[in-house]
Amino acid sequence: MKVSIVAFDGFEDFDFFCMWDLLNRARELSTTNLQVQIVSDECCIVSDTGIKIRSHGTLEEANSSDAILFASGKGTTRKLKDEPFLSEFNLDPARQLIGSIDSGVLILAALGLLEGKSATTYPPYVKTLGEMGVNVVEKPFVCEGNVGTAGGCLAAQYLAGWVIERLLGAEVKDAVLKSIKPIGEGLSFRDFDVRSAPLAH
Amino acid sequence: MKVSIVAFDGFEDFDFFCMWDLLNRARELSTTNLQVQIVSDECCIVSDTGIKIRSHGTLEEANSSDAILFASGKGTTRKLKDEPFLSEFNLDPARQLIGSIDSGVLILAALGLLEGKSATTYPPYVKTLGEMGVNVVEKPFVCEGNVGTAGGCLAAQYLAGWVIERLLGAEVKDAVLKSIKPIGEGLSFRDFDVRSAPLAH
Repeated sequence: MKVSIVAFDGFEDFDFFCMWDLLNRARELSTTNLQVQIVSDECCIVSDTGIKIRSHGTLEEANSSDAILFASGKGTTRKLKDEPFLSEFNLDPARQLIGSIDSGVLILAALGLLEGKSATTYPPYVKTLGEMGVNVVEKPFVCEGNVGTAGGCLAAQYLAGWVIERLLGAEVKDAVLKSIKPIGEGLSFRDFDVRSAPLAH
Repeated sequence: MKVSIVAFDGFEDFDFFCMWDLLNRARELSTTNLQVQIVSDECCIVSDTGIKIRSHGTLEEANSSDAILFASGKGTTRKLKDEPFLSEFNLDPARQLIGSIDSGVLILAALGLLEGKSATTYPPYVKTLGEMGVNVVEKPFVCEGNVGTAGGCLAAQYLAGWVIERLLGAEVKDAVLKSIKPIGEGLSFRDFDVRSAPLAH
């Protein structure tokens, strides 16, 4: 199984690395072979705050992935007008899970994946998303069949959790989300195996 | 004002990038000039999951910072035995805020900053931390004067929030922590200025 996170220059750190980290925890915990990769139209991409990372593959990789998650950030707006970028995608919600966090939803809308559907986003993008014909819902996570959208950085947990549960089962999702809780707020000192015990699904 | 995040090979992504992102939001929101930098004993460092990033400065930078936060991850254990690494630090809680997330607390203990004090950590490190003479407390955040420790990845919010409040005030801290809440769970569509309006302190 393969999950691709689509990133671009000007991506937002928290949203991106939260999804990346949680999916990699699922990869470690599950007995299923899960590949988690960063895909982009450039070999290196730079975040909003200047963090430069390498991508693992081209955008074409997204088209053959079981799940595709779009990053967010100030760079999203530029990508909306980037025809070569948009034309690389050939995604199909009938066979793939497709999701976004915060402003990433604008790319889903630009790709025609949200026509007549509901979705959520980060506050500054509500107006633009509505103007693109999407029913914008004030919720942390909105799921329309195989298209899921999350709004507010910490809602990246719900988005990643949705993908993990759909691909690897509820047991792996629960263990992954538990493993990042604060001590005394969902995680205790007795949970010392939370990141090491492999989970079947 | 200067905040340094100390990182090393094998750092944990979520813990590190959560602190990094929140401190950069504070830098953007505040009218105070805040420098946020990644310091290391290598020019490039690679996370637990293979994310390679550049550091901004040497460990010596930590000694002249107003706040120093230690990253966590599987690489921590190796750093505990790395004398050249440990000997670079000349930290002083009387003039600096010093903090850690999860296993990073082991480095604080190795530097003698927790003698006879209380601290928290991630579950697998409770035993080792106790053996180093620290009173291990099952809480998400423990503050002993100017030394703060957080346990559980999402408690990185409390650690970064503590530094932000101490350096830039409660108003900036509140705005930063609000800006990452999920929609409907602390952040609403009306909060569209949450990341753009500068805040004095």
